[in-house]
Amino acid sequence: MKRSFIREILEYTNSNTISFAGGLPDEKLFPLEVIRDCANSALQSAKVLQYAKSSGLDSLRELIAQSYTKRGFKTSPEEILITSGSQQALDVILRSIKSQNITVEAPSYLGAMNLFALNGIKTEAVELKENGIELNSFKQSVANTKLAYLIPDFQNPTGISYSQECRDMVAKEIKEHNGILIEDAPYSELYFEEFMPPISSKIPNSSYHLGSFSKTLAPALRVGWIRASKKLIKPLLAYKEVMDLHTNMLSQEIISCFLSKHKLYEEHLENIRNSYKSKMEFFTQELDKKIPEFNYIKPKGGMFVYVKTDVDVYKLLERTMQNGVVFVPGGEFYSDNKNRNEIRFNYTNSTQEQISKGIELITEATHYMQYLTNQKSDRYERINSLS
Amino acid sequence: MKRSFIREILEYTNSNTISFAGGLPDEKLFPLEVIRDCANSALQSAKVLQYAKSSGLDSLRELIAQSYTKRGFKTSPEEILITSGSQQALDVILRSIKSQNITVEAPSYLGAMNLFALNGIKTEAVELKENGIELNSFKQSVANTKLAYLIPDFQNPTGISYSQECRDMVAKEIKEHNGILIEDAPYSELYFEEFMPPISSKIPNSSYHLGSFSKTLAPALRVGWIRASKKLIKPLLAYKEVMDLHTNMLSQEIISCFLSKHKLYEEHLENIRNSYKSKMEFFTQELDKKIPEFNYIKPKGGMFVYVKTDVDVYKLLERTMQNGVVFVPGGEFYSDNKNRNEIRFNYTNSTQEQISKGIELITEATHYMQYLTNQKSDRYERINSLS
Repeated sequence: MKRSFIREILEYTNSNTISFAGGLPDEKLFPLEVIRDCANSALQSAKVLQYAKSSGLDSLRELIAQSYTKRGFKTSPEEILITSGSQQALDVILRSIKSQNITVEAPSYLGAMNLFALNGIKTEAVELKENGIELNSFKQSVANTKLAYLIPDFQNPTGISYSQECRDMVAKEIKEHNGILIEDAPYSELYFEEFMPPISSKIPNSSYHLGSFSKTLAPALRVGWIRASKKLIKPLLAYKEVMDLHTNMLSQEIISCFLSKHKLYEEHLENIRNSYKSKMEFFTQELDKKIPEFNYIKPKGGMFVYVKTDVDVYKLLERTMQNGVVFVPGGEFYSDNKNRNEIRFNYTNSTQEQISKGIELITEATHYMQYLTNQKSDRYERINSLS
Repeated sequence: MKRSFIREILEYTNSNTISFAGGLPDEKLFPLEVIRDCANSALQSAKVLQYAKSSGLDSLRELIAQSYTKRGFKTSPEEILITSGSQQALDVILRSIKSQNITVEAPSYLGAMNLFALNGIKTEAVELKENGIELNSFKQSVANTKLAYLIPDFQNPTGISYSQECRDMVAKEIKEHNGILIEDAPYSELYFEEFMPPISSKIPNSSYHLGSFSKTLAPALRVGWIRASKKLIKPLLAYKEVMDLHTNMLSQEIISCFLSKHKLYEEHLENIRNSYKSKMEFFTQELDKKIPEFNYIKPKGGMFVYVKTDVDVYKLLERTMQNGVVFVPGGEFYSDNKNRNEIRFNYTNSTQEQISKGIELITEATHYMQYLTNQKSDRYERINSLS
């Protein structure tokens, strides 16, 4: 199996690298003190260190269920299964449903595509447009696959957010074709304008909604979850159990402790949203100013801005890596792996200085490549005029 | 997929149940204070909460490698892959090697057998004898499967420990047939007499050695590892990565912190060994005293004593459950699931009072069942004599 290009880049960067490559949240926003306090109080009792239930910590399932219900998506704790990150959540689902084909966005999340491959599931890619997935092709594909994997909120890698109309249509098509939706929602809380209701809330009996604390609290705690109807979630438990018995309990206790401090947690989320919004604004302003030939759709949330350009982005990356700047070529997010001259930039884990410097270096490299291309075509013209 | 019987029992017991069922370590031996201190110092820096390398925390890999080397099994940190418990370790290996058949002990660890089933691998069961696996059948089986899964140290469920001779022969057969050994060793540190060198140390290029901190430190931290040659371990990384990105970092930091306090850690292990040894002695003395018709091989380490009897153990369990005592029928540990009138008792998570009371209640229930059987056969004899 091929390793993830992004995680390989991650391993070769050092502390001086300006990285727009990973999907790393900003460490400075990790609520270190609260986590420390919560860890300390959890570790007053040995119970937290013992083997525990595969379904997850009851208090945490309760709190997650409440937060769905509060937003109008009625959910009970029995409809929540805790997993070791939402990466595992997807694996648990795929192993249990044993499908042959799945409809996905093009481009889509690399880690999910690797999981489809691992589970022997063939992807049918449907183009992602400014307002969501292209509906005609989606309809045709789902009629065949009966299964779709979508990231409707601030998608990875494009940053695109589905419009309400597109959400409604997706729900309608899933229902009409007796399909199942896997809705991956790790970025949903990172909205800059408004929270968008999950597509799953329209089709609660034919959807898995995947959540994660990696982007809102801290990735290394490795806690995610699946929200699904009792009928859909029940068979998952045996898979979760055999895969790693249960998810880390200290992490679950820490998160449950933090979530139960409702006001503090809300302030924390608000803080992240504000910070990421201003980072996004700064990043796109710098792009507009320095390299206006980069086209992008301004994200309404999340962690990524996705650029289309004319230069060969793999050659560009080769050049900028030497100068200590990295990003991920868009081609990595398509199942055909073709080069597409698209770039995913992550803006959440860099300071303004790094963003400014990084875009400066990318601009220089881009201009140099454009200069080489022009030179070549000049020479070609001269040779042509001689012959 | 069938859920684990043991974990189902675990979920239905309450705080008053005397449980000899799970494989639970003794909570009172968890080094709660050290773990709290280590957690606190790890959480001084936000770095510990960020996404991290799939291979695991470097300092922890180094410390694990050192502990192998110290015991004469030369190991480098690159030969260690950290996993989310050794349950996941086995899954990572099985997904990567894509075998059709595997040689296993009969009986064997339930969680492993469920993983074989999940990965579409058929088991060939070879009888476990007092000194290890039955070598003639093992030889024949491995010639066919080229792959074996064994638990040579204080096996689960039987508590059996392979003799040095048996270890040598297993290594020889694996080598001769170009096979691969998966050696599961979660109990190896829990020896009552002496540490036994892993079979893997004899065949370092054709073995995976699986370790875990669940029995020596705390299960809920969910940290295990695979020790294998660089050639065998390299392809595993991509699987580990796609399954859950990486293992919980806070747990890894905590464990690394504790392991680096070498003397303290050694004392802690010694403490567990002494405590479990005296629990085992007490448990078997009580059996000898109260119910001498239960046959068992006295364990030299680990967490289980395995009993053979004449009564129907499922009916016995039904009866003792009503009185608040649970254990696992041996039949659960065989791939054919046939009832065998064998019982696995876990002795590590009960107090002397609980052990005494539990065995008392099991004795009563056994005697009652024997009485019923005798009555029936008496009646049968009477009817026979009348006809």
